[in-house]
Amino acid sequence: MVERDFILGDVPGVLWSPVSGAERAPLVLMGHGGGTHKKHPAMSGRARLLVDGCGFHVAVLDAPGHGDRPRTAHDEAEIAELFRARAAGEPEGPIVVRYNDHLARLAVPEYRTLLDALQELPEIEGPAGYWGINMGTAIGIPFVAAEPRITAAVFGQHWPDALAEKAKQITVPIEFDLQWDDEHISREEGLALFDAFASKEKSLHVNSGGHKELPRFEADSAVRFFARHLGEAA
Amino acid sequence: MVERDFILGDVPGVLWSPVSGAERAPLVLMGHGGGTHKKHPAMSGRARLLVDGCGFHVAVLDAPGHGDRPRTAHDEAEIAELFRARAAGEPEGPIVVRYNDHLARLAVPEYRTLLDALQELPEIEGPAGYWGINMGTAIGIPFVAAEPRITAAVFGQHWPDALAEKAKQITVPIEFDLQWDDEHISREEGLALFDAFASKEKSLHVNSGGHKELPRFEADSAVRFFARHLGEAA
Repeated sequence: MVERDFILGDVPGVLWSPVSGAERAPLVLMGHGGGTHKKHPAMSGRARLLVDGCGFHVAVLDAPGHGDRPRTAHDEAEIAELFRARAAGEPEGPIVVRYNDHLARLAVPEYRTLLDALQELPEIEGPAGYWGINMGTAIGIPFVAAEPRITAAVFGQHWPDALAEKAKQITVPIEFDLQWDDEHISREEGLALFDAFASKEKSLHVNSGGHKELPRFEADSAVRFFARHLGEAA
Repeated sequence: MVERDFILGDVPGVLWSPVSGAERAPLVLMGHGGGTHKKHPAMSGRARLLVDGCGFHVAVLDAPGHGDRPRTAHDEAEIAELFRARAAGEPEGPIVVRYNDHLARLAVPEYRTLLDALQELPEIEGPAGYWGINMGTAIGIPFVAAEPRITAAVFGQHWPDALAEKAKQITVPIEFDLQWDDEHISREEGLALFDAFASKEKSLHVNSGGHKELPRFEADSAVRFFARHLGEAA
């Protein structure tokens, strides 16, 4: 696949595309997890599945305070507070929920601008998808709620607190991942966020295991989900 | 695919196999839903996915009182009671749970005898799978709990009452389907049965929609599950 780096305003991003790029193909935007970046192996690995498997284009932005973007004093303070809570054995949820909500308010307009820009490219066509787990869900739910051009989305592994009201505005097909033995997000919290989506077609995939043990085969499932909703699988 | 009818003792069954049958291949036993039979389209359709997609052999028995088997006075009485409750708008669960438990006690030894017989065939090898939803789960959970030769199973859509204790004895990988808007089985009941399995690797697939609206793509997912656990996908 072809990798193109870009800067959108002052936001660094990456666009992955099929090598043979004559025909127009759908686009999937992805959001990375907290503490990682646009080219983390979870992003490039999922992009490869979508590009090689479906011929789609895939784009990711560095989230505010992540990857090649500067951290503000607020970022530093929230990260320090998260590490302090983690070391003290206190729940991470309240801090992650609050910080991710802050980042989402900054990132949603960036993703909308990204979609404007990419839909100008001759090789990209039609409706688009969104795929983000963890912080990628915290950014993705308000983004998809605000963005009628996104017609299918894969989310998962987040608390409902700041997101359930936005999820109620989403009606496009979704697939949602949660871990049955997540040490941070309770079953009730995970199920409550899934339940909130107004989508007529929604699927929940629960797997045994902890927060970081989402099975690899769920990435394959997400790719088949996008193939069903955005176009042909190869 | 090749279809072979057989009678095992006095139990009619069907075995579906690949046309080109030189090499040995794994076996998936299936259990049909309540009120249907071994060659219901849900059975032959799933068999075709397993045979054509994976090269597996697939066998189904008519459940007691179903298909080509005679109904006893007890069967007639329970079916009449179910229809009466349905017409009166009363919950079906208590009757289905009780009747399926009765049928499972008869069917489990039949499935164990079936496995004995089929593993004698030169074209069938190694560990086997089990796939049954609804009544197929009511029969399948006690069968798999008792049968160490079954190494992977797909279940779903049943009440936990008569099954949770047996599910606690199951440790092989499972995939479990439930419908989020099931008019007969509550979310709490469905989740409780999934939760009961002792399997280290277990996946729950929840989809929006009512009891009879399990999406077709869950059959494709089950086939990939068996391909992962029993052998190669074609």
